[in-house]
Order: sequence, then structure tokens, then C-alpha cells
Amino acid sequence: MKNPNNITDIHINLIDRLKEGDRRAVARLITQVENQGQEITKKIIKEIYPLTGKATIVGITGPPGSGKSTLINQLSSKYLDIGMKVSIIAVDPSSPFSGGALLGDRIRMKDHSSNKNLFIRSMANRGKLGGLAIATKDVIHILDAYGSDIIIIETVGVGQSEIDIFKSAHTVIGIIPPGMGDEIQTIKAGIMEITDIFVINKMDHDGVDKIANQIEDMLNISDQFLNNNPYGKSNEKKLNKWRPSIVKTNALKGENIDELIININTHTAFLKNTNSFTQRLIYRYKFYILDILKNLMEKNIENVLFNNDEIEDFIRKKIELREGNDPYTISDLIIKKYLK
Amino acid sequence: MKNPNNITDIHINLIDRLKEGDRRAVARLITQVENQGQEITKKIIKEIYPLTGKATIVGITGPPGSGKSTLINQLSSKYLDIGMKVSIIAVDPSSPFSGGALLGDRIRMKDHSSNKNLFIRSMANRGKLGGLAIATKDVIHILDAYGSDIIIIETVGVGQSEIDIFKSAHTVIGIIPPGMGDEIQTIKAGIMEITDIFVINKMDHDGVDKIANQIEDMLNISDQFLNNNPYGKSNEKKLNKWRPSIVKTNALKGENIDELIININTHTAFLKNTNSFTQRLIYRYKFYILDILKNLMEKNIENVLFNNDEIEDFIRKKIELREGNDPYTISDLIIKKYLK
Repeated sequence: MKNPNNITDIHINLIDRLKEGDRRAVARLITQVENQGQEITKKIIKEIYPLTGKATIVGITGPPGSGKSTLINQLSSKYLDIGMKVSIIAVDPSSPFSGGALLGDRIRMKDHSSNKNLFIRSMANRGKLGGLAIATKDVIHILDAYGSDIIIIETVGVGQSEIDIFKSAHTVIGIIPPGMGDEIQTIKAGIMEITDIFVINKMDHDGVDKIANQIEDMLNISDQFLNNNPYGKSNEKKLNKWRPSIVKTNALKGENIDELIININTHTAFLKNTNSFTQRLIYRYKFYILDILKNLMEKNIENVLFNNDEIEDFIRKKIELREGNDPYTISDLIIKKYLK
Repeated sequence: MKNPNNITDIHINLIDRLKEGDRRAVARLITQVENQGQEITKKIIKEIYPLTGKATIVGITGPPGSGKSTLINQLSSKYLDIGMKVSIIAVDPSSPFSGGALLGDRIRMKDHSSNKNLFIRSMANRGKLGGLAIATKDVIHILDAYGSDIIIIETVGVGQSEIDIFKSAHTVIGIIPPGMGDEIQTIKAGIMEITDIFVINKMDHDGVDKIANQIEDMLNISDQFLNNNPYGKSNEKKLNKWRPSIVKTNALKGENIDELIININTHTAFLKNTNSFTQRLIYRYKFYILDILKNLMEKNIENVLFNNDEIEDFIRKKIELREGNDPYTISDLIIKKYLK
């Protein structure tokens, strides 16, 4: 009987086909990484890792209705037109790329669905299983090894796990619809700090300049955002400050998409011309390792807590009497007894 | 010099005042738990833990614009009217309880702000720091010890960390606005499995019956949702199945709020009359411990990865040559070298 933790001939065959640019092999490898245990994933990533490091990774975030998917559609078209290989990872469950949105959007995306240089993958349903952050990193590496020139990750940007995803990106684009009003405060908490390019979409609407001014104001007064930038040490930060740029677009009409692409290229060049690029590489690598280690530890703790009759009885007795049995005290006992 | 990890006279004084029902002491204790390290939190929770276990904990989730805050406002009014002590924990950053929404909503909430039986706390900005799940559990226990009869937790229900929060609740209410269309598929992934009461708000809108039927259909065909119920062993589950109920409301006009309260009471009674209540207690307790242990481990891993020059150099060298240096292989090396 085969050991299910071993990499099989099937995996080796899939990896060979991925190297040859076989889209179906890519899809199947991703499914393997999503559904098999960490042992299989580890072996697949180990095999493909030497092929990675070439793709530009762009994270795009924005609230539902901000025109995220339309913008990604336009960006992809431009990249495809010049012969680039584009991959899209949709984490937003309401995205048309995830099959979850309006019929009109879905039809529009069909323009490209026959293009062999385009690969779209929805990871929208991975959230509930946990491990979205790590799975996204695995998938990015597979798409990188496959030869994608650009990998676009789409999320709604809510919650820590989505912010974690952006730690894998070279450039983070935050879309802000005009007329958000007070809600711009909401964006501030979390996404603001990691955004490299602000896109004010629907530039034909009222309130575009107001939003642009608000963002400028925020950037002017908020050295703390830039200082929160986690790449490198404090003295390096000052030298390599990237001031987030602001681009106004109309994704629906395809206006100013070229300007956005120029901004993405400028940011990538900035990273490469300063030592920021290596810093981001190290940072991304560390966060990948962090996810892997956390995942291993969590499985270990969960296994002890949820599949152990002794612990079950222990806790059942403890919760009957509250005095001296608070969860922090019991955690210490469990570490000593079961996790050393 | 005082050891910053020691519980001080100030904390003891705050706990004494909490026991006497002093709202300002509650607020200050929560701030301590949010901002101090785990050592202080541990000591505070240990002190107050014997006083906990009396509050009914209700989680309320729903997308932005579903009327979540209005419904919570109405529910709170009813509970306050009959002399109950109500606490609200707002995790949704766009909620008026978090100060992040429309002026109208904020004014409306002011009706209660002078009521001494109402305590409102926003935890909306905790997300980016991580540890929201554990901080929420700490705060729930403080509010329980303070003597809250009912603790309402409000989230938008996106992301794993928000779903984790609901593992602290006795009853989970999922608000579904009519006219969601395909988006009901989105709700399914994550929130559906843990919802005890579905509220279709805005019952005067079109599409209410359609949504109700869709939920009924889903409950009929989806024994898997009920089987996903993590409480107890498989044979116990069959005995104690709670079929989620559906309530139509109009929060804005205050219609059917009584029916919702009856449903909450019915669900609480169900838990207490079956062994589900103890099972949920054990389950909640385990998840609290899980959070505490994960938090400790994560800090340990992060400390190794981000504050260690040796690791920094090690990784810097590793990413130069990709062959044999994939993050999974390096994770194994780091475990052996630094985490044993």
C-alpha cells in the first residue's frame, strides 16, 4: 500500500507538465495542495521552489462594489495584450472570478476565459477551513513556477487573514470608491498601512477629489503609517520610504488603466532600486515560514485539545468548579502535562 | 521597581469596583486586558473567573447594511425595559457602536447611552493587532463577571477570526437581508454552519419569502450542516439536534423583536434541557485555551523569526539559492535548531 504522505508518480507527472506550461496540471496541483495534508504540499513546493521568484505579485483590495473585479479585468486585458502570462487568485467570495457575482460580470470575464495565458483560481471557500494565508502562499508559488509574469490576488480586505495575504505581494493596490464618507476611517485600520497605490475608482462620480485630498492629508500627517512599514530596520526605512501614490480610474470605461500600470511598474522599480526588494523577499519568506510553523503547532495543540479523552475529562471536571480553574491557569497545566 | 507582570493594587481595586458594578472600572479593566501583556490579563481573568458563567452570550452577524445595529438597538431596548443589564461588544468597524457609521445611527444609539444598565465596547480596531479572538473572550468574561445578564457580540461575519468569535456565544443570530440573490451562497460558507437563528430583516421588502424558502431548503437538504456541529460525539448530536429557526423582522420599525427574543429564549432553554449546554461550555472553554496556547506559541515563533539576527542572516543566505531552500524545508530546520 502506498504511503499517502509520499509524493507519487502522479505528482511528479503533474509537476513535469506544469513546467511545460500545462494549465490543467496547474489546476490539479493546486487542488492537491488545497486538499492533501501538509506533507504532500511540502513535497510539491520543494520540487517547484527552484522555479519560483520570477512573477510580479500584486494584491488588489477594496470593498464590495468598488469595481475591484472590473479593474482586474481591465488590467489583465492590458497585460494579456502584450503577451504576458496572467494569473488571478480570487479570495473575495462575492467576486465574479469566484463565480459568486452578477451575471453581467461573469459574462464579461468570458472574453478572456479562452486565453491560454490567463489562469483564474478562486480560493473563496478556503476561509472556513483556516489556513487561507498559507494556502494562498502555496498557490502563489505554484503559479510562479508555472511561469506567470503577473499574479493578481483579489480580496475584500476585511480581517486579519486577508491582510496576511498581502504580505505575499510586491505591490498592494487599495481601491477606494468615491462617496465613502466616514468609511474611509474603516479602511485606515489595517489596509491603509500596507497599501502602495491607492486607486480611486469611478472617477466620474462626485467626491473623487475630496477622497483624494483625504488620502493626501492622511499621508501627510501620518508618518506613523510609513513607520509601521515592517520592512527593514528603522534607519533603512527612512532611506527607502515609498510614498503611496494615488491613481484615479474608471474601470468600467477602461480609463487611466495605463496610468495604473505605470504606477505598478514605478513601485516595482523602486523596490528593486533600493534594498526594499530583498527586504520584502526576506519578509515574505519569514511570513511563509511563520504560517507553516503556526500551522504545525496549531494542529499539534488542536490534536491534544480535541482528540484526547483524558483532556476531555480533565476539562469537564475543571469547569464544574470555577475557583482556580480559569482557562489561563489550565493552559499552563496543559502545557506542562501535554505539550512539553 | 515594580514588576510590570505583577497584578497591582490598581488592578485589585478595579476588580473590587467591578464587583460593585462600577461601569468605569469595567472599561478600565478591559483597556488593561487589551493593552497589557498576557501575564496581566491572566491575573485579571484568574481573579474574576469565579464570578463568571451567568451571562447569556448572543452573537449577531450580518453583512453591512443588513440592519444589524438597528436590530441590536431594538433588542437592547427590550432587555433594558425589563431591567436587564445589557453589554454590547462591537467588532464590526462600520457599526455605529464602533463610532464608524452614519450620523443618524449614532444619534439613535444615544437614547440609551445614559442608561446605567447598558455597557458598549468597540473592539473594532483590535483586528490588525491579531489576537481579536482571545481579546474578545477576555472581554466577555469581564462583562460576565461585571454582572451582565446578556452580552451581545456584533460582527460582519467575514473571515475566520470573526467565526472564531462566535465559538464564545450561546446563541448565534445570522441576519440575512432580502434580495441577496446569489450572495446567500457566500453566507453558507462559514456562518451558515454556526447560525442558530436566521433573521430575515427588512421583512417589508420584496424577496423575503424567497430567502426564507432558500434557507428552509438548505436546512432540509443539508444534514451536513447539522453534522458539522462540533458539540459532542456523533450519537449525542443526533439526539440534540437544534434545527435553526427563521424569524422575519423589521428592525427599523421594531417589528417582531419579541418573536426574536422568544426564539433566543427557546434556544437557550434547548441548550439547558439537553446536554448541549455542558458540551458548549466545554467547547468554549477549549477554544479559550486553544487561543491562549496559540497566542503563546505564536509569540514564541514570531520572536524567533523576527528578533533574531542569526535567523535573519540564515534566511538571507537561504533565499539567495532557491534549490533545497524552500520554506517548508527551512521550517523543519528552524524547528530543530531554534524551537526544540
